[in-house]
Amino acid sequence: MKVNDDLLIHNVNLATMADNGADYGVVLDACVAICDDVITFAGKRNEYSGSAAETVDADGQWLLPGFVDCHTHLVFGGDRADEFEKRLNGLTYQQIAEQGGGIKSTVKATREASAQSLLSSAKARARQLAREGVTTIEVKSGYGLNLETEVKMLEVAKQLESYLPVQIETTFLGAHALPDEYKGDADGYIDYLCDTCIPYVAKHQLASTVDVFCEGIGFSPAQCERVFTAAKSHDLNIKGHVEQLSDLKGARLAASMAAISVDHIEYLSVEDVPRLNQHNTVAVLLPGAFYYLNETKKPPIDALREHQVPMAVATDLNPGSSPIASLLTCANMACVMFKLTPEEALKGITVNAAKALKLTDRGTIAPQQRADLCLWDIQYPAQLVYAINHYLPSAKWVGGKRVD
Amino acid sequence: MKVNDDLLIHNVNLATMADNGADYGVVLDACVAICDDVITFAGKRNEYSGSAAETVDADGQWLLPGFVDCHTHLVFGGDRADEFEKRLNGLTYQQIAEQGGGIKSTVKATREASAQSLLSSAKARARQLAREGVTTIEVKSGYGLNLETEVKMLEVAKQLESYLPVQIETTFLGAHALPDEYKGDADGYIDYLCDTCIPYVAKHQLASTVDVFCEGIGFSPAQCERVFTAAKSHDLNIKGHVEQLSDLKGARLAASMAAISVDHIEYLSVEDVPRLNQHNTVAVLLPGAFYYLNETKKPPIDALREHQVPMAVATDLNPGSSPIASLLTCANMACVMFKLTPEEALKGITVNAAKALKLTDRGTIAPQQRADLCLWDIQYPAQLVYAINHYLPSAKWVGGKRVD
Ligand SMILES: [Zn+2]
Ligand SMILES: [Zn+2]
Repeated sequence: MKVNDDLLIHNVNLATMADNGADYGVVLDACVAICDDVITFAGKRNEYSGSAAETVDADGQWLLPGFVDCHTHLVFGGDRADEFEKRLNGLTYQQIAEQGGGIKSTVKATREASAQSLLSSAKARARQLAREGVTTIEVKSGYGLNLETEVKMLEVAKQLESYLPVQIETTFLGAHALPDEYKGDADGYIDYLCDTCIPYVAKHQLASTVDVFCEGIGFSPAQCERVFTAAKSHDLNIKGHVEQLSDLKGARLAASMAAISVDHIEYLSVEDVPRLNQHNTVAVLLPGAFYYLNETKKPPIDALREHQVPMAVATDLNPGSSPIASLLTCANMACVMFKLTPEEALKGITVNAAKALKLTDRGTIAPQQRADLCLWDIQYPAQLVYAINHYLPSAKWVGGKRVD
Repeated sequence: MKVNDDLLIHNVNLATMADNGADYGVVLDACVAICDDVITFAGKRNEYSGSAAETVDADGQWLLPGFVDCHTHLVFGGDRADEFEKRLNGLTYQQIAEQGGGIKSTVKATREASAQSLLSSAKARARQLAREGVTTIEVKSGYGLNLETEVKMLEVAKQLESYLPVQIETTFLGAHALPDEYKGDADGYIDYLCDTCIPYVAKHQLASTVDVFCEGIGFSPAQCERVFTAAKSHDLNIKGHVEQLSDLKGARLAASMAAISVDHIEYLSVEDVPRLNQHNTVAVLLPGAFYYLNETKKPPIDALREHQVPMAVATDLNPGSSPIASLLTCANMACVMFKLTPEEALKGITVNAAKALKLTDRGTIAPQQRADLCLWDIQYPAQLVYAINHYLPSAKWVGGKRVD
């Protein structure tokens, strides 16, 4: 018999996260075959008719797709623990801002940092994500706020692939905050982003997507629309930080322009939810920021469910509002605080997270999907999001290669 | 010069957690000397006049006392992820109870489990705590509710010391819930605890402390008082789960009987806070349960601070209301949700956690303290509780021995 696959993982239960009629897309007593970097077979053990060069007996453990963290800001200079401490010692946000704190301090530190030092700290954070089963990480720029530093951030993000078993998706977030150089001239900064930065990022393929912060303390919907238009004219995907602190109708704008995701959305009005469904826009929930900021207004989960909007969950890993390097903890928070079911939370860090990045080649266990897979010593999938810091993968394959 | 110490850790910054006038008991540019299992010197590098057989250059990193998790229930059978999932799928607590869920399911599973299988699952949980720098773990019984199984739990807990670099403190919590065998006869069960179980536990030195669950769904203050009296008559320490869901004045009772700690205390009345100070009773905060149960009533932190009640923070690691195997995450929760300062949170998992267990030989870095020490690659102590899942110790010594 001709050997046609590289690897067969058998005696395994699958939570494929694909739509096969079962919760979690479960297939019990299954096997998965891999050739090169893709899955060639995933299904009942006795239905596999191929032959593989190597076999792994998974001893009844569970195989899940590698997790996808679809929203992070994990490349940055400095640290904001000092600010966290000052706030808890009674300083107000205003006082901290006057001392140069907040996002400005991260922008300053990121501009001053060498690419080497940014890479080193980002590696430590990405390693923590990867340890818990994350195999794809989206990383945004947005702490440079000038072309040079934004480019440095995006290049550093991409370099993580050389050091860790992860794939990196980069997003340009020039419209994260207004830099001091453009104080009082937000529209001038938007011009700079649209006329200089986005064309450069597109030309050099530094990012696949352009993101904005649509908020009173960020940019107005009209300004965000200009950024989106520029991005689309360069064939870049768009997505937005919207409705985190108020309802500026950023989600409505983003969806109408076919954004691949809208993120945060605590203040999203239920009447705007159907628009997400209409435009295939994924709702990305970021419970880590909700937790750190002691927010009380929750995203409209029931309406998202009712209108079948795919929900993803991400860490939002960033130094200010979500210094949390655990996607499983965020999935737990989505259950505990937002009342997602464990299945919704796990789909939120696999299939729907991939959708939020418009990556059609991952997020489920199915033929032709990338062989990004983690094996877990659990009895059933809900355990992974019920407990905090209990589980680590017992084996991991990225692009078909076994990695530590 | 005569070699008088086994080990000198130098070029290190100390967060001693001792009262030396500096925040966190910090000593910069310090060294620590160890002989056998105790610290012989901790202070400024240039003030050490001894000589050590081995030296470790800590390269400017930070040394902290090993963490103490002073409240866990980490020996148990089964798992309650199914229940977590059912609740999120819309079942009520009542429906879950009718299906045999809740603590009853854990009691059933724990009674049925072999010591070997209890040990195996407890080991996995304790290992996760230890990985993050915990060197002392308190473990309670309370899922047996009969002498045989309570003893099995306490013995298993103690055995963890043979497998992991941790010290275990055991607590007898027979008064955790009413077993079915005593349905309608709570006082009869209290008789059994006082007349049979506590004497047995004391005689065989299976626990140093006796705990109770003083609550509407647990035991009344009068019943708890009987348990405390029996415990004290056998020279055992006492502590209580009190004021978690309502204000039954369990803390007042416990303090008046010189309890070493009162735990949970969300509903503790501010007027009862001074009593804790008067009786040297530690307030143990359990933010993990607060988080998992979506509670909103917070412990009276300001009053505890005002009356200088030592505050500890613990995981409450248990299968129902706090399946969280990370003491640093709980310290973070104490900051984010209860507004402890990072210093209070770190003292809560070191010096004050040791006090909550009446262990005077650990929790700070000082001469004659146990050499339970962790080295951290950080710039300042607040970082450890600001971030979630960022840091692991870069080196660890337990009882003076270097461990992985
Ligand atoms: Zn973000
Ligand atoms: Zn407890």
